[in-house]
Amino acid sequence: MKAEILAIGTELLLGQIVNTNAQYLSQQCALLGIDVYFQTVVGDNEQRLRDAFALAKSRADLIICTGGIGPTQDDLTKDVLSSISGMPIILHQPSMDKMTAFFQKRNVPMVESNIRQAHMLDGSDPLLNDTGMAVGLAFTHEGTHYIVLPGPPKEMKPMFDRYATPWIQSKSQGELPLYSKMLKFAGIGESGLEHALIDLIKDQTDPTIAPYAKEGEVTIRLSTKATDPHEAESKMYAVEQEIRKRVGAHIYAEDDISIEDAIVRIMEKMGTSLATAESCTGGLLGDLITNIPGTSVVYRGGIICYTNDIKHRVLGVPKEVLDGPDAPGAVSEQTAILLAENVMNLMGASYGLAITGVAGPNQLEGHPVGLVYVGIAIKGVPTEAVKLQLAGTREMVKLRAAKSALYHLWKRMNRS
Amino acid sequence: MKAEILAIGTELLLGQIVNTNAQYLSQQCALLGIDVYFQTVVGDNEQRLRDAFALAKSRADLIICTGGIGPTQDDLTKDVLSSISGMPIILHQPSMDKMTAFFQKRNVPMVESNIRQAHMLDGSDPLLNDTGMAVGLAFTHEGTHYIVLPGPPKEMKPMFDRYATPWIQSKSQGELPLYSKMLKFAGIGESGLEHALIDLIKDQTDPTIAPYAKEGEVTIRLSTKATDPHEAESKMYAVEQEIRKRVGAHIYAEDDISIEDAIVRIMEKMGTSLATAESCTGGLLGDLITNIPGTSVVYRGGIICYTNDIKHRVLGVPKEVLDGPDAPGAVSEQTAILLAENVMNLMGASYGLAITGVAGPNQLEGHPVGLVYVGIAIKGVPTEAVKLQLAGTREMVKLRAAKSALYHLWKRMNRS
Repeated sequence: MKAEILAIGTELLLGQIVNTNAQYLSQQCALLGIDVYFQTVVGDNEQRLRDAFALAKSRADLIICTGGIGPTQDDLTKDVLSSISGMPIILHQPSMDKMTAFFQKRNVPMVESNIRQAHMLDGSDPLLNDTGMAVGLAFTHEGTHYIVLPGPPKEMKPMFDRYATPWIQSKSQGELPLYSKMLKFAGIGESGLEHALIDLIKDQTDPTIAPYAKEGEVTIRLSTKATDPHEAESKMYAVEQEIRKRVGAHIYAEDDISIEDAIVRIMEKMGTSLATAESCTGGLLGDLITNIPGTSVVYRGGIICYTNDIKHRVLGVPKEVLDGPDAPGAVSEQTAILLAENVMNLMGASYGLAITGVAGPNQLEGHPVGLVYVGIAIKGVPTEAVKLQLAGTREMVKLRAAKSALYHLWKRMNRS
Repeated sequence: MKAEILAIGTELLLGQIVNTNAQYLSQQCALLGIDVYFQTVVGDNEQRLRDAFALAKSRADLIICTGGIGPTQDDLTKDVLSSISGMPIILHQPSMDKMTAFFQKRNVPMVESNIRQAHMLDGSDPLLNDTGMAVGLAFTHEGTHYIVLPGPPKEMKPMFDRYATPWIQSKSQGELPLYSKMLKFAGIGESGLEHALIDLIKDQTDPTIAPYAKEGEVTIRLSTKATDPHEAESKMYAVEQEIRKRVGAHIYAEDDISIEDAIVRIMEKMGTSLATAESCTGGLLGDLITNIPGTSVVYRGGIICYTNDIKHRVLGVPKEVLDGPDAPGAVSEQTAILLAENVMNLMGASYGLAITGVAGPNQLEGHPVGLVYVGIAIKGVPTEAVKLQLAGTREMVKLRAAKSALYHLWKRMNRS
């Protein structure tokens, strides 16, 4: 079944709100095994709405629309669909009764335009609105299925999950559900990953292989249609094994979690703890780690040592390492190692993770922008440093440095 | 001018990401006086992409598309546009040189598919990518203007603002240029601001008054079409004065800078310096401050004191304040004040800013989620604390706490 998601509302075209409904409905369609080929947004304008429905009908079997079913004059969805289908507008009495009771209870007179929210089409199935007033619709006209939902996500989601989903499933019998598996990668970029898997990606049929990158992380999603999870797993097995053979060292999770989340989970299980020392990332590493709920049992804290003075006085890096003509300097393997060890000891943690480098936009002490050293200290094991050369703006270098540091920590944790 | 925004990427149709680009571009078009009639999302499929361009062309004068210009085989935008327009693919040498230098510097062989990112159409204007690799395009074909942008918002936004906007403005001649003035607010939410200005916003004609919120900041943009800046200024004067009369205390800048940027600029000028102590924000405050280039002359560093032990041992908060049945506890005015003073002294800074509170999702020591104390220490002046009750998810509480702390610091700095 091919679907199109049609969002209706001028506020979307003015950029006043972001169309999260389209994302939610696309996700749900994927889980139902329905292919979404287009998402469209159209304003509260009768002619353009009419055109948008005609176009969607020409290219989809299922049209899921959101918005335009409220009480006001610019809520046109049901009127336009009535005109297109020839199905007359009628009243959904239970929705009307609910609305009347609501206003009576609050002792407020009901503005007449509210009646529009109880409108449905003669021959349509009502979709109940458990969290609002406007009733939704499901109907089939000339072979095309229509689902009409409210715009506010708080009303749209429960209506879709509870009432639209079973309706759609009853219309898509015989189709297999879609199963997906995520592989999350760290320490490798999107293009590096694609390069390693280019032949698999090019020749993909079933399962499909979809790589994508966001916020310093890369994900591959394998998807296949199958009768049950077991069959899906066995259909994906060979491709997954081949991917693991080539780039398995970079896979840190099989579900949609960040590398910092993976680390916090491992440390929580092992009863270990972490402290951080940050120069060029300026607190971002701590920020990422503390975005994970429950991190407080694992994360002790950190030192943002933005000046050499703080590196020396608070974290005990000797002046001879930091300054002087022959000194390694603040951006060096030695400094990264000392920062990691000393913050671990200062905070009484079992791991110390340190970052020192040049975020830019200007060079520092003759070092190029993007040069970063990561120090990884583990209680009772020799401390190691990793040298990185990262690209991008100041903020991107910071993010990539923090994510790379987490990746190298994760790798060390798995090794030890 | 009528515009259509076309987002290209199967990941959008699978619901893996939300189409924030469409919102951003719609907002920017509104500011440029361009009407957006449709937003469309299409997958990485040649035929459907071709159809989507044809349709957009039939109903818009300007097509702004995002995505599908990366290095991989499913990045089809430029190829499809070349085929539609008959304009051959050529190489944009500066983008190619930049990429070559990038890989050489990192000592990594460049995967050949990367060359695709330097492709442009013969006869198009390149749009430079200051924050990534793929070059964008601007061209006019058969009377329709095309803007081709990358998908990642971090690349798309700067390219649109710096290079696409002037290009679009040059094509909308005959129309008076649009002049805008920004007022940046801190310490007040979007709804609070709207409430204070509701009559002005409702009755707006010329200039237009557009409030919007992002990343914990609220902005009002006044816009008017005028023959020159002088005329624009005089058209905006009365409205701006009325806004200042009502909520002027919250205005910290008249250009698009963040509150942390405003603080760093003042401190740089005054020759003062800052140290931070963070509990619930976990490093985010330091991260925000160190996103500002040149912050290193101002920012000494910070302590992320995520546990009571670190608050006591590293920042000298007495155990009697932190623990015990009658102790104020870690989330208290006393702790905020001691953290601010002690981090200022430890780091030898002229200002100390501290945050302690409950980011959630769970309560802490009986305190509700969102309860936050901010401590502001200034050399030679009594330290003050501010109590906040913030709403939102864990990450939103963190961001709002950090931004509020910066606002209160800024207010104190202006007072002293």
